[in-house]
Amino acid sequence: MRPSGRQPDELRPIRITRHFTRHAEGSVLVEFGDTRVLCTASAEESVPPFLRGKGRGWITAEYGMLPRSTGTRMGREAARGRQQGRTVEIQRLIGRSLRAAIDLQALGERQIILDCDVLQADGGTRTASITGAYVALTDAVNQLLKDRRVKKNPLHGQVAAVSVGIYRGQPVLDLDYLEDSEAETDMNVVMNEAGQFIEIQGTAEGHAFRMDELNAMMELARIGVTRLVAAQSEALATN
Amino acid sequence: MRPSGRQPDELRPIRITRHFTRHAEGSVLVEFGDTRVLCTASAEESVPPFLRGKGRGWITAEYGMLPRSTGTRMGREAARGRQQGRTVEIQRLIGRSLRAAIDLQALGERQIILDCDVLQADGGTRTASITGAYVALTDAVNQLLKDRRVKKNPLHGQVAAVSVGIYRGQPVLDLDYLEDSEAETDMNVVMNEAGQFIEIQGTAEGHAFRMDELNAMMELARIGVTRLVAAQSEALATN
Amino acid sequence: MRPSGRQPDELRPIRITRHFTRHAEGSVLVEFGDTRVLCTASAEESVPPFLRGKGRGWITAEYGMLPRSTGTRMGREAARGRQQGRTVEIQRLIGRSLRAAIDLQALGERQIILDCDVLQADGGTRTASITGAYVALTDAVNQLLKDRRVKKNPLHGQVAAVSVGIYRGQPVLDLDYLEDSEAETDMNVVMNEAGQFIEIQGTAEGHAFRMDELNAMMELARIGVTRLVAAQSEALATN
Amino acid sequence: MRPSGRQPDELRPIRITRHFTRHAEGSVLVEFGDTRVLCTASAEESVPPFLRGKGRGWITAEYGMLPRSTGTRMGREAARGRQQGRTVEIQRLIGRSLRAAIDLQALGERQIILDCDVLQADGGTRTASITGAYVALTDAVNQLLKDRRVKKNPLHGQVAAVSVGIYRGQPVLDLDYLEDSEAETDMNVVMNEAGQFIEIQGTAEGHAFRMDELNAMMELARIGVTRLVAAQSEALATN
Amino acid sequence: MRPSGRQPDELRPIRITRHFTRHAEGSVLVEFGDTRVLCTASAEESVPPFLRGKGRGWITAEYGMLPRSTGTRMGREAARGRQQGRTVEIQRLIGRSLRAAIDLQALGERQIILDCDVLQADGGTRTASITGAYVALTDAVNQLLKDRRVKKNPLHGQVAAVSVGIYRGQPVLDLDYLEDSEAETDMNVVMNEAGQFIEIQGTAEGHAFRMDELNAMMELARIGVTRLVAAQSEALATN
Amino acid sequence: MRPSGRQPDELRPIRITRHFTRHAEGSVLVEFGDTRVLCTASAEESVPPFLRGKGRGWITAEYGMLPRSTGTRMGREAARGRQQGRTVEIQRLIGRSLRAAIDLQALGERQIILDCDVLQADGGTRTASITGAYVALTDAVNQLLKDRRVKKNPLHGQVAAVSVGIYRGQPVLDLDYLEDSEAETDMNVVMNEAGQFIEIQGTAEGHAFRMDELNAMMELARIGVTRLVAAQSEALATN
Repeated sequence: MRPSGRQPDELRPIRITRHFTRHAEGSVLVEFGDTRVLCTASAEESVPPFLRGKGRGWITAEYGMLPRSTGTRMGREAARGRQQGRTVEIQRLIGRSLRAAIDLQALGERQIILDCDVLQADGGTRTASITGAYVALTDAVNQLLKDRRVKKNPLHGQVAAVSVGIYRGQPVLDLDYLEDSEAETDMNVVMNEAGQFIEIQGTAEGHAFRMDELNAMMELARIGVTRLVAAQSEALATN
Repeated sequence: MRPSGRQPDELRPIRITRHFTRHAEGSVLVEFGDTRVLCTASAEESVPPFLRGKGRGWITAEYGMLPRSTGTRMGREAARGRQQGRTVEIQRLIGRSLRAAIDLQALGERQIILDCDVLQADGGTRTASITGAYVALTDAVNQLLKDRRVKKNPLHGQVAAVSVGIYRGQPVLDLDYLEDSEAETDMNVVMNEAGQFIEIQGTAEGHAFRMDELNAMMELARIGVTRLVAAQSEALATN
Repeated sequence: MRPSGRQPDELRPIRITRHFTRHAEGSVLVEFGDTRVLCTASAEESVPPFLRGKGRGWITAEYGMLPRSTGTRMGREAARGRQQGRTVEIQRLIGRSLRAAIDLQALGERQIILDCDVLQADGGTRTASITGAYVALTDAVNQLLKDRRVKKNPLHGQVAAVSVGIYRGQPVLDLDYLEDSEAETDMNVVMNEAGQFIEIQGTAEGHAFRMDELNAMMELARIGVTRLVAAQSEALATN
Repeated sequence: MRPSGRQPDELRPIRITRHFTRHAEGSVLVEFGDTRVLCTASAEESVPPFLRGKGRGWITAEYGMLPRSTGTRMGREAARGRQQGRTVEIQRLIGRSLRAAIDLQALGERQIILDCDVLQADGGTRTASITGAYVALTDAVNQLLKDRRVKKNPLHGQVAAVSVGIYRGQPVLDLDYLEDSEAETDMNVVMNEAGQFIEIQGTAEGHAFRMDELNAMMELARIGVTRLVAAQSEALATN
Repeated sequence: MRPSGRQPDELRPIRITRHFTRHAEGSVLVEFGDTRVLCTASAEESVPPFLRGKGRGWITAEYGMLPRSTGTRMGREAARGRQQGRTVEIQRLIGRSLRAAIDLQALGERQIILDCDVLQADGGTRTASITGAYVALTDAVNQLLKDRRVKKNPLHGQVAAVSVGIYRGQPVLDLDYLEDSEAETDMNVVMNEAGQFIEIQGTAEGHAFRMDELNAMMELARIGVTRLVAAQSEALATN
Repeated sequence: MRPSGRQPDELRPIRITRHFTRHAEGSVLVEFGDTRVLCTASAEESVPPFLRGKGRGWITAEYGMLPRSTGTRMGREAARGRQQGRTVEIQRLIGRSLRAAIDLQALGERQIILDCDVLQADGGTRTASITGAYVALTDAVNQLLKDRRVKKNPLHGQVAAVSVGIYRGQPVLDLDYLEDSEAETDMNVVMNEAGQFIEIQGTAEGHAFRMDELNAMMELARIGVTRLVAAQSEALATN
C-alpha cells in the first residue's frame, strides 16, 4: 500500500494560507502535506514587448526552489547563471494553466506575475503551485477591481491541479516524493471547476501505460481537483 | 474543413530518408508534409557525470530550429546565448520518449545523443523529431552491434509520436501550422508499437476540453502512430 | 522621532524559529520586525577545489530575495542569469562573518553552506541573515557532532549583526526600511558575544560623519548585538 | 598527389540548389563536394540600432554547424551558451564579404540577414558559405525589387570565395578536410567577378610561405573564383 | 617590524601622474609604492535608465585588474564571462565614495564613468583607485566647466582613501601585499578633506578587534588621508 | 598626403620598453606612435585539456582594450559578460602568429599566455600587440631557460607585424587611426625575420583591390617588418 497509509483516492492534508507576506497583491502559502509553496501575484501596469499597444493583458509565472527545500541541497540557479530545463518547463506550465482562467482582454494592458517559490518539497510542487497561484491571482484581481483599475472581473474559471500516477500497479492520487520517485507513470492534470481539462502531462517512467489506466487516472484526477477547488473556494470565502 | 483538404484522421505525406548525411552513426531526414527535420544519432563512449562508473548508458536529445526554418526569422539561440524555454521543453520530451524504447543497462556505459534540427517548419516539429529520432537511434544501435561494442540489442520497443487536436470543434490528426495556430486544443502523443502511451502532453488553448474529446483524440493518435510505426519499419527494412 | 515610535536604542521585536523546514541540518526563520529571512545550513562532505586535500573545512553563504519580498517586484536573478552586485556583496559578508565563529581545521574537510532567503523585506536583511545563520550553523554543527562526523565542537564564538545609522541627525539602532531609505549614514556591524568587532561596513549616504558619531553608533551596535546574542542563546536553549 | 585524385587547380564538384526551403526570401543549398551548407537570406524592415534613421541598409551574417556535421560530434553552441571564436570569425568574414557586393544606400533602411548553416562538413565551409550566400542574397534582393520595396538593384558586384593552400609542397585549389588538416598554408580568398580581391586570409600552419608561393596561390584562387562565379550565374539563370 | 621597514604611520611613496593617456577627459596614473592603477574619467551626455528625465547626473565606477598585474596570473574576467564578487564589491565602493564628493543636481543630466584598471598590484588597489579617481574626476569636471556644459562646479568635497590594519599586533597604515596577506584586521577608510568619514569597511581576518584598536586605526587613517589629500591638491595645482 | 606628414613607407616612432611591470616573466610596453599596448607573457606549468599528457606545450593570447583607450568610451567586456567578435578575432591572430615562432615540443608540457592590453589606441593595435608579444615571449622563454625548466631554446624564428593599406589611392605603411578609418583597403601582415609570411589578413573596405596593389602592399610590409625586427633585436640586446 501507499507509504503514507493513504487510500488510493486520498489527497494529502491541504492548507491554503492567504496574506502570507504583506507586499504582494496576492500572497498565498499552499501546503499539500509536507510540500509548501509560497505563491505571490504581482500586478504591474505594463506588458511584455510583444503585447504593447494591443489593449490586452498577460499572465506569466516564474518558479523556483529554495536550495535546501529538498533532501540534498541543489545549486542556486541565480548563482549558476541559468534556470534548469525542469524549472523552465514548470513555469511555462503554471503560466499557461492560469491564463486559461482569465479573459486577457478584460484584464486590460497590464500584467500579473505569479511567483511560485518552493520552501519545502515533498512531491507535487507544480500542482501545488498551480492550485495556490489561482488563489493568489484571485486576490490580486480583487485588488485591481477594488482600486477600479479593472472594471469587470476578468476571471471566468477556477483552476486547480493534482498529480496522479501508477504506483506498484495501482492508480493513486496526489503522489508524495516517496511514491513519485518509484512510480511507473506520473501525470499532472490541470482542470477547471467543471471537471474539464486545461492541461495533461503524463510520462511513463517504467513501462508504457494502457488506455484503461489512463481512464482510471483521469477519474482520480477529477476527484482530486473537485476537492482542491472546494479548498480554494473555502480559503477565498474567509478573510 | 481542414485547410489542406485532409480527412480528420489523415496524416500528411510521411517521408523518412536514412543516411541523409554521412558522418553520424544514424542520420535521418524525416518529413511530415512540409515539416522537415534532420535527426542524427551520435554514439559516444562516455556518459554524463551522474552515471559514471555505474555500467549504464544514456540517451539524450538536443533540438534546434534553423533561424529561417519559420515564416519569420527567429533569433539564433547560439547568438543570444541561451536556449528558449520551448526548446528546452521539446528536447527533454524527445530524450524521455526515446529512453522509453531502450534498455540502458544493455546499452552499456555509453551515450547516444539525438540531435533534431528543424530545416523547415510547418507544425508538428516535435512529433516528427521523435519519429525520425527513433530511426536514427536504430541505425546507431545497429552500428554498435555490428562493431561488437554492444552485445545484445538494447532496443525493446518502437516509438513514434503524432499531434492531435480540436480544430473548429472537430478532433483532427497531425496538425499543420495553419491548424495549430488556431486549434482549441493541441496534444502531442508518444506511443509504442503496441499502442500504449509513453507520453501525453495536451493543452487547451481556447476553452477546456471534455473527457469524450480526450477519448476521440486518443483514438486518432492510435491511428496515426500505427501508420508512423509502419513507415519507420518500412524505412528500416530497405537499405 | 522614529516612524515606528521606537526609542533610538530599541530593536524591533526579534523572533527566531528553529526547524522551520525539515530537510536542512539547520533551518531557522529569523524575524527582525517585518523582515523575515529563512536561513538554512547544509552540511556537505566536500570542499571547494582550492581547499581539496588540505584537511580544512569551509563555510560559505548564498543570499537571495524572493521577487516579491519587496514593495515593488524585483526581477528574479535566476531568470536574468546573474546575481546583482548587491547580492554578491551581501553573501560575501555573511560568509566572512560566520567563518569568524568557527575553527575550520576542527570542522575537517567538509563544507557548510548557509542559504539566506528573504521572504519579506523591511530593512536590515543582511544583519538578520547573519544573526539567523549563526543559529542554523549551530544546529548543523550539533548534528555533525551527534553523528560523530566531527569530534570536537569547531564553533569558538557567537556572531550576531545589527544595523545602526544616523536618522534625522540622531544615531539609531536597527533601521527599518522607512528609516533606511532616508538615513544620512547606514552601518552594518557584526560582533561576537564579547562585543568585539568582526566586520564594520558604514556608508555616508548624505554628508560625511564625524568620529563622535561613529563612536555613538558603535555603542548602539554593542547594545543591539548584546540583545541579539541573548535571543540566539535563548532560541538554542529550547527544543 | 591529392587524396581525391584531383588536379592542383581542380575544384570539387559544385552544386547550387535554389529554393531549398520555402520560407526565406533566398534559400540555397551549396555543395563543394561533400561540404553542404544551407544559406538563407532573410529581408527585414529594420536595421541595427547604430544605423537607425540614417536611411542606409545593412547586411549581416550568422554561421553555425549542426552538431554532427563533422566526424566527431561538436557541442551545440546554443546549449553551451556561447559561440566559439572560430564561429564569430567566420560570420564576420561572410558579412564583410557580402557587404562588398551591395550599395547599402540603395538598399534603403532595411537589413538582410544571411544564415549559413553547415549540414555536412568536409573542408571549405566558409568559402562555400560566401559563394552560396551570394546567390541567396541575390534571390532576396530580386524579391525586394519585385515587391517594389527597393527601387533600383543595390547589387553592384558578384562575390565568390575559394580556399587555396600548400599541400605537401604543392599549391592546390579548394582543399577538402583531409588536405586542410595537413596543409602547410591555408588561405581563403574572396574575389569579385572581375578577379579583384575583397578579402584575403592566409595562415602558415607549418613553416612560413614565400612571395612566389603567395603569387601561385593567388593565381589558383583566380581560376577557382572564375569558375564559381560562372556556377553562380548559371544557377541564377534558371528557375 | 614592517617588511618594508616603514614606520607604523608611514605611507608608501605616492605618485599621481595626470594626463597619462590622451583620450579621456581625466586620465591619472596613481602609484602607492608598487601598486599602480590607471584611473580614467569619461564624461557622457546620458544617464542610466533609472535617472532619465530627472535632471540629475550620475557617477559610476568600474574596476579591473590586468591578468598579470599580480604574482600569479588571474583569469581574464571578460573571457570567463563574469566579474568576480570581489570586483563587483570594489567598483561599487569606488562609485559610492566619489558620489559623496559631488552635487549630482549641479552636474546635470550627464554621467561620469570612472574606470580604475590595475596595471600592477601590491596591496591597496581599492584605496589607490579612489584616491586617483578623485583627481581624474576633477580633471573631467574642469573640462565640462571649460566647455560650459556645466555652469557651476558640482564638486563640493575632496575624497581620498587609505587602508589601515593590525599587523603582528600593531596598528599600521597603508598595508602592502605582504602585510595584507598576513594582517589580523584590514580596513579601508574613505574620508573627505575635513577628516570626516565617507565609508568604512573593516574585516577581522584573524580574531575580532576591540574598540581601542578601532580608534587607533581611525587615527592612522586620518593621518594617511590628510597626506593623500595634500598629494592630490599638489598634483592638481600643477599642469 | 598622410595626415601625419609621414612618407608612404614610413613607420611611426617605435618604442619597446621591457620590464614595464614586475610580476610577469615577460612584460613589454610597445608603442607604435600613440598606440600603446602592454604585452605580458606568463609561463604556467600546465596546458589546456586537449594537450594534457602529450609532452607538448602551448602558446595562447588574450587581447583587451581598456574602456577609455579610445576616443569614445567602449563598454567593458567583463561587465557585459562577453568578448566582442573583434576581440576574439584579434586574440586568435596573436596566438597563431606567435605559435609560428616556437617549437612546442621543445617548450615541453607548459603554457605561455600572452596578454595584450591596449592602454591607448591610435590604429594598429593588433600589429603592435604581435610585435610586442614576441619580445615578452622571448623574455619569458629566457627565464625558463635560466630556471632550467626548459633545456633548449624553443624559439626558432622572430615574428613581427605591421599594417599596410591603400589610403586615398596610395599604398601606405603602418596606418594610424585617421588613415585606418578612411582607408580603401586595410591589411595586417605577420612575417618572420626572413621576410616570409606567417599570416595575411586583408579587407577591401571600399572597392576591391588588384593584384598589383597587393604586390605593392606586400613590399611595404616587408620594409616595415624588417625595421620592426631590428627594433625588437635592439630592445632585446640591452638590459
